[in-house]
Amino acid sequence: MKNIKYENGVLTVLDQSRLPGEEIYFTPKTKEDYYSAIKTLKVRGAPAIGIFAAFAMALIDEDKTELKTYLDSVRPTAVNLSWATARMLDAYNEGKSLIDEAIAIQNEDIAMCRKISEYGLSLLKDGDGILTHCNAGALATSEYGTGLGPLLLGKEKGYNFRVYSDETRPLLQGARLTSYELEKAGIDVTLICDNMASLVMKEGRINAVLVGADRIANNGDTANKIGTSGVAILAKHYKIPFYVLAPYSTIDTACENGSGIIIEERDADEIKSFYFEKPSALPETKCYNPAFDVTDSGLITAIITDKGIHYPPFNFKEQL
Amino acid sequence: MKNIKYENGVLTVLDQSRLPGEEIYFTPKTKEDYYSAIKTLKVRGAPAIGIFAAFAMALIDEDKTELKTYLDSVRPTAVNLSWATARMLDAYNEGKSLIDEAIAIQNEDIAMCRKISEYGLSLLKDGDGILTHCNAGALATSEYGTGLGPLLLGKEKGYNFRVYSDETRPLLQGARLTSYELEKAGIDVTLICDNMASLVMKEGRINAVLVGADRIANNGDTANKIGTSGVAILAKHYKIPFYVLAPYSTIDTACENGSGIIIEERDADEIKSFYFEKPSALPETKCYNPAFDVTDSGLITAIITDKGIHYPPFNFKEQL
Repeated sequence: MKNIKYENGVLTVLDQSRLPGEEIYFTPKTKEDYYSAIKTLKVRGAPAIGIFAAFAMALIDEDKTELKTYLDSVRPTAVNLSWATARMLDAYNEGKSLIDEAIAIQNEDIAMCRKISEYGLSLLKDGDGILTHCNAGALATSEYGTGLGPLLLGKEKGYNFRVYSDETRPLLQGARLTSYELEKAGIDVTLICDNMASLVMKEGRINAVLVGADRIANNGDTANKIGTSGVAILAKHYKIPFYVLAPYSTIDTACENGSGIIIEERDADEIKSFYFEKPSALPETKCYNPAFDVTDSGLITAIITDKGIHYPPFNFKEQL
Repeated sequence: MKNIKYENGVLTVLDQSRLPGEEIYFTPKTKEDYYSAIKTLKVRGAPAIGIFAAFAMALIDEDKTELKTYLDSVRPTAVNLSWATARMLDAYNEGKSLIDEAIAIQNEDIAMCRKISEYGLSLLKDGDGILTHCNAGALATSEYGTGLGPLLLGKEKGYNFRVYSDETRPLLQGARLTSYELEKAGIDVTLICDNMASLVMKEGRINAVLVGADRIANNGDTANKIGTSGVAILAKHYKIPFYVLAPYSTIDTACENGSGIIIEERDADEIKSFYFEKPSALPETKCYNPAFDVTDSGLITAIITDKGIHYPPFNFKEQL
């Protein structure tokens, strides 16, 4: 599955907001098309957004400095986005081919995901039961993905995994995206509710947990989709290895530990109303909707990046 | 809140299947009305079903033996249902007033829940943060409830609790019922997704976990709504007391431990489709939908019944 494809001068992009019910591809024309595609989550996942914005910088014929500012503003906290547009602006100022640069950014992402996938796969064996949370697959990147990379690569190499995908409330990325892309890849996937993770572990169905990461502190404390820390605690209780897979660039050595990571709190109505046919609670009922949590490094068996497999105790500054 | 009210010769029942959006009361007339009200979850919760069926036995003027068989058949595994109809049949055969017997069953349930609530409240202090999972409240019983009993009783006595209610996927009883009834009782309640329990515990928001139980083995292993065992493991990790509250009749001393408890597996489509505006995964994607899990007794701080507060190691046969 290639969610962003540049072929014969045309960019074709999978609309992730319509999955899994509809597979619709679109071709953005104006800068506003690019902007709204990111805004409305047609394109999501930090690396995928960076790649998509790089193609915008290459294909939209406007002042590149203004274009970068405009694109960056759609998701100010997405590091990959501003990183990609900055690199494209540099390439422009150096007189390089912009389309070649965008293609290079995408190919580098593919190579990086491939490395993560190979390192991750070396930790698994044929027939393993795997639990995953949220979506760290090809849809979020360009190919293979990070958390799902070893599964997609393993499938190519003839491994048979039995994957359990947490649906990942409130936005259901595990149902809508992970179960979708594993199914499409022909991998044996079973969808469960987040609160079923304990039982599937207890029943002996799970040999390893694979998750992605949004930010990793110097000591290995890892911010990822809400619920990840709970899965890690369950894995420790049931003595199941818990692996975090992410690009090395996700490690923020300036951040000593998890206490320095700020948790984004999202709109309460997502819990009561997103994807529901009617609200699940009274209008006056409060919700608490943190988008991420931090998994203590002591719960992590290994962190797998494109630079290798890192074991605790983690101290990435000194490992550099 | 009284979900089943008998006044001036008329039975008035709250339709729980329409909550929280609509508060609709109905008065069943025929035996088919009673049957379908249980079938379609207008009336749910084991004690509430028993009370409702007792009133059916009293108010429907038909052969009582046939009526019992008919009512029992709607939910063959609900012990309270056949227990209540058997008691009503005995009363009929002994020439007792059936309406008095039904009222007695309801009043005994209220008294039992009150005792559980008082014992439970003795373990809490004003201002405590409480996490609960699923719905073990007044809606499932007749008044106070079991798991929520200490909160509802505490409110009457002037306690201020801050309650976090897991939404409890896939059927969302925590959102639709628990947050509803706590809100109506004027208790400070915050709705969260199941996977947020770890974070709210880590943030120090929770002083105790209160849950109900569907069946308790002799050694204290406890079957309850799916996800309960995960919450118990998190509570142990964060050193938070984990309390199970249930009628003493929930303890099955013939069942040595949790391995003897069979877990009901429900329709996979509940995960993909219940309450959703459209399916969350592809039609071909498998789901695993266990309705309950078993919490190991070693994770339980105390089991609170109408007979008192029971501490580990549990051995209810010998405590009898």
